[in-house]
Amino acid sequence: MTSAATAKPTLVSLARELGVSRQTVSNALNAPHVVAPETRERVLAAITASGYRPSAVGRALRTRRSMNLAYRLYPAVDGINGAVMDRFLHHLVVQAQRHGYRVTLFDTPSYPAEIDALVEQHQAGLIDACVLTDTHSGDPRPRRLTRAGLPVVAFGRPWGDLESPHAWLDIDGGAGCEEAVAHLRAQGHTRIGFLGWPEGSGAGDDRCSGWARGMAGLDVAGLRVHAEDGVRQGVEATAALLTAGATAVVCVSDSLALGAASRFRSAGRSAADVIGFDDTPVAAALGLSSIAQPVEQAAATLITMTLAVLRGERLSAPHSLLPAHLVLRGHQPLQP
Amino acid sequence: MTSAATAKPTLVSLARELGVSRQTVSNALNAPHVVAPETRERVLAAITASGYRPSAVGRALRTRRSMNLAYRLYPAVDGINGAVMDRFLHHLVVQAQRHGYRVTLFDTPSYPAEIDALVEQHQAGLIDACVLTDTHSGDPRPRRLTRAGLPVVAFGRPWGDLESPHAWLDIDGGAGCEEAVAHLRAQGHTRIGFLGWPEGSGAGDDRCSGWARGMAGLDVAGLRVHAEDGVRQGVEATAALLTAGATAVVCVSDSLALGAASRFRSAGRSAADVIGFDDTPVAAALGLSSIAQPVEQAAATLITMTLAVLRGERLSAPHSLLPAHLVLRGHQPLQP
Repeated sequence: MTSAATAKPTLVSLARELGVSRQTVSNALNAPHVVAPETRERVLAAITASGYRPSAVGRALRTRRSMNLAYRLYPAVDGINGAVMDRFLHHLVVQAQRHGYRVTLFDTPSYPAEIDALVEQHQAGLIDACVLTDTHSGDPRPRRLTRAGLPVVAFGRPWGDLESPHAWLDIDGGAGCEEAVAHLRAQGHTRIGFLGWPEGSGAGDDRCSGWARGMAGLDVAGLRVHAEDGVRQGVEATAALLTAGATAVVCVSDSLALGAASRFRSAGRSAADVIGFDDTPVAAALGLSSIAQPVEQAAATLITMTLAVLRGERLSAPHSLLPAHLVLRGHQPLQP
Repeated sequence: MTSAATAKPTLVSLARELGVSRQTVSNALNAPHVVAPETRERVLAAITASGYRPSAVGRALRTRRSMNLAYRLYPAVDGINGAVMDRFLHHLVVQAQRHGYRVTLFDTPSYPAEIDALVEQHQAGLIDACVLTDTHSGDPRPRRLTRAGLPVVAFGRPWGDLESPHAWLDIDGGAGCEEAVAHLRAQGHTRIGFLGWPEGSGAGDDRCSGWARGMAGLDVAGLRVHAEDGVRQGVEATAALLTAGATAVVCVSDSLALGAASRFRSAGRSAADVIGFDDTPVAAALGLSSIAQPVEQAAATLITMTLAVLRGERLSAPHSLLPAHLVLRGHQPLQP
């Protein structure tokens, strides 16, 4: 392998062979008007004969473009909700490479380390921009990275800092939950619970407020409970909702919804009255209804935004909110 | 952002400022013995004062090392079994960056396109090596890529071509299934079914042969069934196993095991007698027993192998088979 690499013709070896300078070879390729026509022909003929391919590294040095986007890959947590980000990442890779960009992964244990790593990679010319995910209230990354000159595009709102100058895109989870409540009300339910994450997460609070809007005009006493994410936590938290007389529940995640569905069945109720969030493959496999995020469209739009930012354009719509939609599964869920 | 990029000092701007050639600045950094001591001091002082950082791109051009490893990110399929590869990828990223390497993603619709993309990226100097996954019988990639001079390290055996010269690592799934059967026999089961993928997949056939070894001395008539991967397929295929008198079942995947567990419960049997494969987060959340792959260890070992290959070393153990282990979950699975 080493020998194959050494044998590859380079600007330098071509120049030596032709008895011209490295710069002349480079000019023949990149600035042909400054090279005498006969020299140019001779260089190009030698290049064709040699099988030389202009190196992407050399191009990066000339253009100061690495054609790389940085993406922090978080550790897998429960593998249920995480599936939606895995699908997003795949679409991001496909959309990026349609435009000649690649997605390069990294991970760090903390925000200061993440910011340092990104700034360092950018200064070293390894990345052109970064795609941030998992934004939350008080997230220092968008402003600090923008200040350091690194183009930032985020999948997720800058919760609590909606005036941040960076480009972002998010899914309107609140509207999705409102739609889920409207569906359940149309089925005749009036005691519709909300099973959310602990208060303070931007996405979770947004979904909760959508539920609250959907419940307008109804008594909601005891119908809102919060729990750490997880299937078993969903089972436990749903007990309180049943005590409060809930006959249906909208959940902030499919993990919690799996637990809620299990508790509903134990109580002799139908799991069809439980709606999760993210339309994960597990929800699909087990027959649970869920609110879906359009991750393919999100990835395509984010890449379009990234390209515009990299061209230095002022985006007419630097922020975008895509609609979520309800996926109903009427059939009886499986009983693993 | 553009202005910040333009303001960054470069070898060229430093050379201009100091009235020396670009090569002299480069030599002061990379080949100090060829530069006069006073010039060297002057250049290094200017570099320190300017905040110049040697560009990774420039370094890549000098060293012909991109410090990038290519990894094909396959589209998410059912999100249950896929979770194990997501965990593997995260560990691969973390292990690679411990050694200064980054993992860059791509995807292609086919093998010829994958091979072309990898060779092109390698020739353009964008990647130093690739980590292949999803190897299977007749997989053309390892030999073709090796022949094209691209260092290849694979997570997965070269099924049917174990003499292929590339480095690979795999998990001993067959031994894992054998252990699962031994556990069930120790519980008193003698009619232990195997629910596998259609014959012809290397990993699936290997797991099946482990089950067959474990069943030595027992009648296995009717106890082996095959199905496409999926929860519903698992439900259907398990009916045939129950008809054949199976009282327990080892499954080639957690997706199939979820279906098998559901069918077992419908038949009044305990889902604790169903064992899946991959110990996915879904199996953990739902309380199913499963055979686990040590993906963190696999990623660390693969990166060690990759570094050795890149150093041009002849590996004393170019192939490695790590043990799988059985994760037992005694409690009653949830009923979503």
